[in-house]
Amino acid sequence: MASRFIRTLKCVNGHSDAVSTNREAGCVFCDIVAGDAEASLVYEDSTHIAFMDKAPINPGHVLVLPKDHHPTLLDMPLGEVGPLFTRAAHIAAAVRDALGADGFNVGQNSGRAANQIVFHVHVHIIPRYRRDSPDGKWPTRREAALGELEAVANRIRKHVGSLPTS
Amino acid sequence: MASRFIRTLKCVNGHSDAVSTNREAGCVFCDIVAGDAEASLVYEDSTHIAFMDKAPINPGHVLVLPKDHHPTLLDMPLGEVGPLFTRAAHIAAAVRDALGADGFNVGQNSGRAANQIVFHVHVHIIPRYRRDSPDGKWPTRREAALGELEAVANRIRKHVGSLPTS
Repeated sequence: MASRFIRTLKCVNGHSDAVSTNREAGCVFCDIVAGDAEASLVYEDSTHIAFMDKAPINPGHVLVLPKDHHPTLLDMPLGEVGPLFTRAAHIAAAVRDALGADGFNVGQNSGRAANQIVFHVHVHIIPRYRRDSPDGKWPTRREAALGELEAVANRIRKHVGSLPTS
Repeated sequence: MASRFIRTLKCVNGHSDAVSTNREAGCVFCDIVAGDAEASLVYEDSTHIAFMDKAPINPGHVLVLPKDHHPTLLDMPLGEVGPLFTRAAHIAAAVRDALGADGFNVGQNSGRAANQIVFHVHVHIIPRYRRDSPDGKWPTRREAALGELEAVANRIRKHVGSLPTS
């Protein structure tokens, strides 16, 4: 299934439309990178992609990942870690600005013991609000409808822009 | 109070003993950077430092931070985000290897709404084990004795080494 969201958001940074050079069969995130699975994208450049988590902890919960397939953070070349988190911070600013969040959590889970579910390394950006969790716990994760995800993605896309080059 | 741990671990990477150029009065992490507060260090170079969290979610819970004071991730220059998380990944590998962890969480909380407690940007590395949380929740955070922290730090220090330059 090709994704209209991916097609409408190719190359926001003016990069060539590069796809992972090491796609892993059966990896749903590789399928999204390739345009073979649906996702509500908020950012894409030649090496990285970001889209809405289908089961957000809060509305605006975004995943940021390299297009290349690496199962966990420690399977990546160390030199690729910085560019991944630079994009995560850039996108976190857009999430905060688009949604008026009071803060956000950045999370990277490596390994099943750490609650990693999809074994294609990814960074969670979770917007937070002063009263979203009065007892200090995480808000409850829930499946979101595609239309709801796309509405939030539209708001974030207006703020995300290109990655600064300096 | 000068820290014996800081003194014993200065310059593991052979860098000069640089201290933050923008120390914030009253910031406990700036005090640790300057050697004026105690911490069990596992890594230090000219721009970054890592030490044990005093209230670990699991033994081996480490904080990685820039020496320069920035309250949250979005107060940092974007170009400094990559170097911070590169060090976090490097140290996460050492934590995993030292403790035989099955996985780890990397976390960065920005803002009080996101449970940030100390407003000097820092990255959490939390080793995880298959049976540390059978219900999928976080293990319970608790204060640890300094001796206990230092014993774990000693194990991690043996694995951390220098940051690869390429």
